[in-house]
Amino acid sequence: MKAWTITQPGKPDVLELRETQPPEMGPTDVRIAVQAIGLNRADILQRQGLYPAPPGTNPDVPGLEYAGVVTEVGSNVQGRQPGDRVMGLVGGGAYAEQVVVNERETIAVPASLSITDAAAVPEAFLTAYRAIFLEGGLQPGGWCLIRAATSGIGIAAMQLTRAFGARSLGTSRSMERLNAVRHWGLDAAHAEQDGPLVDAVRQHTGPGAHVILDLVGGSGYLEENMACLRPEGTQVVVGIMAGRDDSIDMGTLLFKRLTLRAMTMRSLPLERRIGLAQLFTERLAPFFAEGRLKPVVDTVRPFDQAREAHELMESGVHTGKIVLANLDNAGG
Amino acid sequence: MKAWTITQPGKPDVLELRETQPPEMGPTDVRIAVQAIGLNRADILQRQGLYPAPPGTNPDVPGLEYAGVVTEVGSNVQGRQPGDRVMGLVGGGAYAEQVVVNERETIAVPASLSITDAAAVPEAFLTAYRAIFLEGGLQPGGWCLIRAATSGIGIAAMQLTRAFGARSLGTSRSMERLNAVRHWGLDAAHAEQDGPLVDAVRQHTGPGAHVILDLVGGSGYLEENMACLRPEGTQVVVGIMAGRDDSIDMGTLLFKRLTLRAMTMRSLPLERRIGLAQLFTERLAPFFAEGRLKPVVDTVRPFDQAREAHELMESGVHTGKIVLANLDNAGG
Repeated sequence: MKAWTITQPGKPDVLELRETQPPEMGPTDVRIAVQAIGLNRADILQRQGLYPAPPGTNPDVPGLEYAGVVTEVGSNVQGRQPGDRVMGLVGGGAYAEQVVVNERETIAVPASLSITDAAAVPEAFLTAYRAIFLEGGLQPGGWCLIRAATSGIGIAAMQLTRAFGARSLGTSRSMERLNAVRHWGLDAAHAEQDGPLVDAVRQHTGPGAHVILDLVGGSGYLEENMACLRPEGTQVVVGIMAGRDDSIDMGTLLFKRLTLRAMTMRSLPLERRIGLAQLFTERLAPFFAEGRLKPVVDTVRPFDQAREAHELMESGVHTGKIVLANLDNAGG
Repeated sequence: MKAWTITQPGKPDVLELRETQPPEMGPTDVRIAVQAIGLNRADILQRQGLYPAPPGTNPDVPGLEYAGVVTEVGSNVQGRQPGDRVMGLVGGGAYAEQVVVNERETIAVPASLSITDAAAVPEAFLTAYRAIFLEGGLQPGGWCLIRAATSGIGIAAMQLTRAFGARSLGTSRSMERLNAVRHWGLDAAHAEQDGPLVDAVRQHTGPGAHVILDLVGGSGYLEENMACLRPEGTQVVVGIMAGRDDSIDMGTLLFKRLTLRAMTMRSLPLERRIGLAQLFTERLAPFFAEGRLKPVVDTVRPFDQAREAHELMESGVHTGKIVLANLDNAGG
């Protein structure tokens, strides 16, 4: 099969489409012809040599989410058959013509979604859902501060808060970027140059946000975030785009009884990917079927343009997901 | 009634024993003749003007835990009667001859405990239990790093980890101080001057501690603590004795998927004090009855020596609790 391979750490041109050995199957696995791949910022960090693949994953083929069609099932598979449209999360290896995964970690693609739409769903929506509701504990009626709001995860987050009865305030560099996405479900918006964020948060939420979904990380943002949380609020860190290092006032943490928690999706063991797949099917899939949640695809590029897709992602002008499509792929 | 009153922010001599109005009772309240009071570091911060009393509490009378005898019950009290020995947490006001609290937030003193022992129990054991097991999520077999271990909360923590099937590694300034307390249940000990803590943690726990009970706070400890946690570990901050300000590597937080959480006991609303009282009765009281948990009293001073007791606490040479006793008090 063909797979995009990181030949050495570097710029997009270190990616090469190479002929590689298809992955082996076990008795509870399914083989999937990958027809669309959602791109993630972690793919770029991995290509740059800054974020090694988790153990047990092909270290040289990036890609954290796929959508496609089952082509082969193991001898003990119970719930999938060839032809099923499925999507899901993997620790790596999705930039390929085939992936092999346990049947229980696959998610049935809702009938209303195209395969390219489906590839834009698992990482963004499961990351945002897990961060806001499972790790952050946001309740109906509560406020989520989304930093920053124009990414794929940010737009998924504003849809989820609205669909599940909570409210969101989104930040970004400019109001133009926020205006381009707020119709997805943002209740309030604040551009970073428009005065202190904490004032806007107070105005909308009173004592502060219950949960912060943080994709930005360090470099001075933490103090502001802690000021924007209400007592006993939780900041969930899922990205550090602005940097790693920051200062922290442990007194504010203590007297406001705050929680600062980080999570990643890429290093999840099988049993937790299965748990999230079940959760998606139970709680999110019905909302996709009703159109109350929608994939947000910025750009679809053909499978052979992975380098160009990386360049586009690094330019930072997209809002929503970038997807590689390989719709004619029948399994490589 | 008489109560120790903070006349102005300052040293121990700003405390004055004054005649004050006894607190009013409601129909579900009980009046308690306070016969022993456990001292806490927060009392000193409050006396210094650094930690104002929570709303709804007498701002000038410190004291977060009491033990005594019920002297009067409200018209709708169901479960307490005069003569009952009770103990509990309050937001303030325990340095007095009387406290009035809702009957449901009182805890029956286990028969095996004296009243002075009882006053040493609620804050230390409920803080440690809540921090380690409820907020930290420590499971049987897991490792708790206790920083620092020689305080009342630290000694309660090592007893609780042992009683509930978990393990503890305690830190302190010197091995002498650790040797004085380790028989209470510490599985391993590390003095701060004896080389890198992270090496000792690795040696005992393998990949790191599941939970850190942190009484120390900032001033450079956070980086070391994050290095001592295993992936997905939790640091629970309950004190900041070393200072407020610190630096944080959000990259380490993210890639190890850590949680940094703070809690206080003093600002708990009624319903949560009731919840903790029920939890104590169900889970901890049987262990006190069997002698598997024991109060740790360093010093008992008479009620009229609150100033001297504060001086003793500030000297930092005690291990365990300092208690003020007023055993002849029948309600002031």
